[in-house]
Amino acid sequence: MKAIPTKKPEANKVALPSALGRVLAENVVADEDLPRFDKSAVDGYAVRAKDTVGASQFKPKILKIVRDRIDRNQATQVWTGNPISEGADAVVMLENTKRTGEEIEVWVPLTPGENVSKKGEDVQKGKTAVETGVRLKPQHLAFIAALGKTEAKVFERPRIAVLATGNELVEIGYEPQPGQIFDTNRLMISSLCMELGAELLDLGIAKDDLAEIAGKLKEGLRKADVIITTGGTSVGVADLVPEAANKVGKPGVVVHGVAMRPGMPTALAVVDGKPVLILSGNPVAAFVGFEAFGRPLICRLLGLKQTEPRPTVKAKITRKATGALGRKTFVRVRVFEDRDDLLAEPVSSKGSGIISTMTRGNGFVVVPENREGLAEGEIVSVSLFDGVEVT
Amino acid sequence: MKAIPTKKPEANKVALPSALGRVLAENVVADEDLPRFDKSAVDGYAVRAKDTVGASQFKPKILKIVRDRIDRNQATQVWTGNPISEGADAVVMLENTKRTGEEIEVWVPLTPGENVSKKGEDVQKGKTAVETGVRLKPQHLAFIAALGKTEAKVFERPRIAVLATGNELVEIGYEPQPGQIFDTNRLMISSLCMELGAELLDLGIAKDDLAEIAGKLKEGLRKADVIITTGGTSVGVADLVPEAANKVGKPGVVVHGVAMRPGMPTALAVVDGKPVLILSGNPVAAFVGFEAFGRPLICRLLGLKQTEPRPTVKAKITRKATGALGRKTFVRVRVFEDRDDLLAEPVSSKGSGIISTMTRGNGFVVVPENREGLAEGEIVSVSLFDGVEVT
Repeated sequence: MKAIPTKKPEANKVALPSALGRVLAENVVADEDLPRFDKSAVDGYAVRAKDTVGASQFKPKILKIVRDRIDRNQATQVWTGNPISEGADAVVMLENTKRTGEEIEVWVPLTPGENVSKKGEDVQKGKTAVETGVRLKPQHLAFIAALGKTEAKVFERPRIAVLATGNELVEIGYEPQPGQIFDTNRLMISSLCMELGAELLDLGIAKDDLAEIAGKLKEGLRKADVIITTGGTSVGVADLVPEAANKVGKPGVVVHGVAMRPGMPTALAVVDGKPVLILSGNPVAAFVGFEAFGRPLICRLLGLKQTEPRPTVKAKITRKATGALGRKTFVRVRVFEDRDDLLAEPVSSKGSGIISTMTRGNGFVVVPENREGLAEGEIVSVSLFDGVEVT
Repeated sequence: MKAIPTKKPEANKVALPSALGRVLAENVVADEDLPRFDKSAVDGYAVRAKDTVGASQFKPKILKIVRDRIDRNQATQVWTGNPISEGADAVVMLENTKRTGEEIEVWVPLTPGENVSKKGEDVQKGKTAVETGVRLKPQHLAFIAALGKTEAKVFERPRIAVLATGNELVEIGYEPQPGQIFDTNRLMISSLCMELGAELLDLGIAKDDLAEIAGKLKEGLRKADVIITTGGTSVGVADLVPEAANKVGKPGVVVHGVAMRPGMPTALAVVDGKPVLILSGNPVAAFVGFEAFGRPLICRLLGLKQTEPRPTVKAKITRKATGALGRKTFVRVRVFEDRDDLLAEPVSSKGSGIISTMTRGNGFVVVPENREGLAEGEIVSVSLFDGVEVT
């Protein structure tokens, strides 16, 4: 994968609310300290720590409440987030005090700095607050906004062209002829790309025809950063899409056939410096091929500093799962809670054409190349493609 | 939370590509069997299983290749997904055969149904394919499309009005006066709602003024399904927002003060049958309050059949974390991979005003009410609000 060329994405400034889920294209550096001033971390009274030495509920220290700067045995009332009054170095929490008129009893001793958020504790002037290559979550936006910035520079979304191939495919909404099936892969792969934050170009369905497929690939290369196809690839025969990729440009197919199941016929081509990911026509194999190759590729094109993995959990497998020596086998499982344990139940199926194994299941377990299978009760690592049902 | 009224969301039909991430509002029932016909799960030859009894590489069975319906000792070539020819009941994989002209050697014995995806294996006619209340992922869309449907009925997005309160707040992009801070909570809470799939109504910033806050709440109640506010709530004092909620309608505040830290001053009101979630003005407390109350509330308004939990992992805590007896304490941690282990390092801070604890950290660990803290090395359950860095 690392050998596949991808151009560095362009970057643009966008307003912070629109930057949610986008990938930061530069380090955000603090123009000043944050917090801008020492502030109270709690509701209470700003005091001098040394005035509270030895304080207890039975032997309280009495302090006089003042408005502003404080001196010996004085305090000012502060709410969380308020600046600490000049002269104070700690804050006693409201619940550790008792107020009577303009005086308070302090019931606990404080150390200097206690319950104070120090100037620059979040980030110091000149330091990086949020690093380039991060996908911006709500908390990142809040942090950037706290620095007074209204915009963030983010990478442009990669454009992915998606093509389905196969004489047996019919567009949803049309009447299938005997032996035909609805094309579902284009919708599924497009949706997976959209979830990652890409822009989509729909190349439609091509018949099993070399010239038609080559024409679609050329269109995709003109308009998009990557092409992803489904169908028309196999191991050894009926390799129309790899053939078409070789026809439209150099170097053409660089990988064909991957030691994984499902997804063996997955291929990867490079044409005009752009990657063409050639996935199987079987829905589950296409999904697995996308997860193994499409996801890392798109994460790179998004400008992410690392591939964004699916959430992973450890679970106990409820029955044995068969693998294939020499190949990574992706077993679909349904992970569910069972009291405090997580269990992973293999979702059985005869092949990779059964879409419902991906809706009944919520994750994959990989049986490694060097193992024939997984034993019942084994603790396995599950990559989740849907949530875990809570019982 | 269960006592809080929420109206059942309205539902609308949308085209499948637009249904990604939306919540299904009805059971999708199959109008016919899927697959529509017995189909091959592999590339190979459709055969009669009984013709392969005793086959091996040393004693192959010889079958004659025909085009169409097969009879005794005949086979037809099939690619994955093709219908099984009439007369056949199993498929032998290409790699277990050898072709010479119009004959094949079969090297393995097959059982009836082997490598065949049976008609109706995905779903049978009249049965539910995808259930109401599911958030539609790419694989659900593919499954619905495979049934020939072009649309899905989904719940309308809930409308959330977000209001920040506090004299100390200044809009980002403006010049802060001494002691002022930029309002970051509105952006953060709005983004959290958007990530869940809600529509936003921005109520701006209100001063610490009862009439102004009440006016904003009335506006929110007119236009939105829920109001979420930040600031102006505390335990015992400076409770302007709860006071305003009580002023605008009945029953008003139903919960005020929650045994959690941070987030103690979180309150919940109901006015005109609509929930008003009143969060702390501290960013971390607001985040925690949102996770504990806002997320389940919005998930219900989305029509989800269960609250969508954050991904959860088990990790070993690298040092002790302090809690508070009688309160749930939310400790921010940074989860990272260390060889095969996951470690959770507490991200220290003096208070809940330090936003960077949520960008340096990627999850929360909860110290339960009945414990003073967590011991170093303890295995804890971490609720992740950002990805785990892979090393």
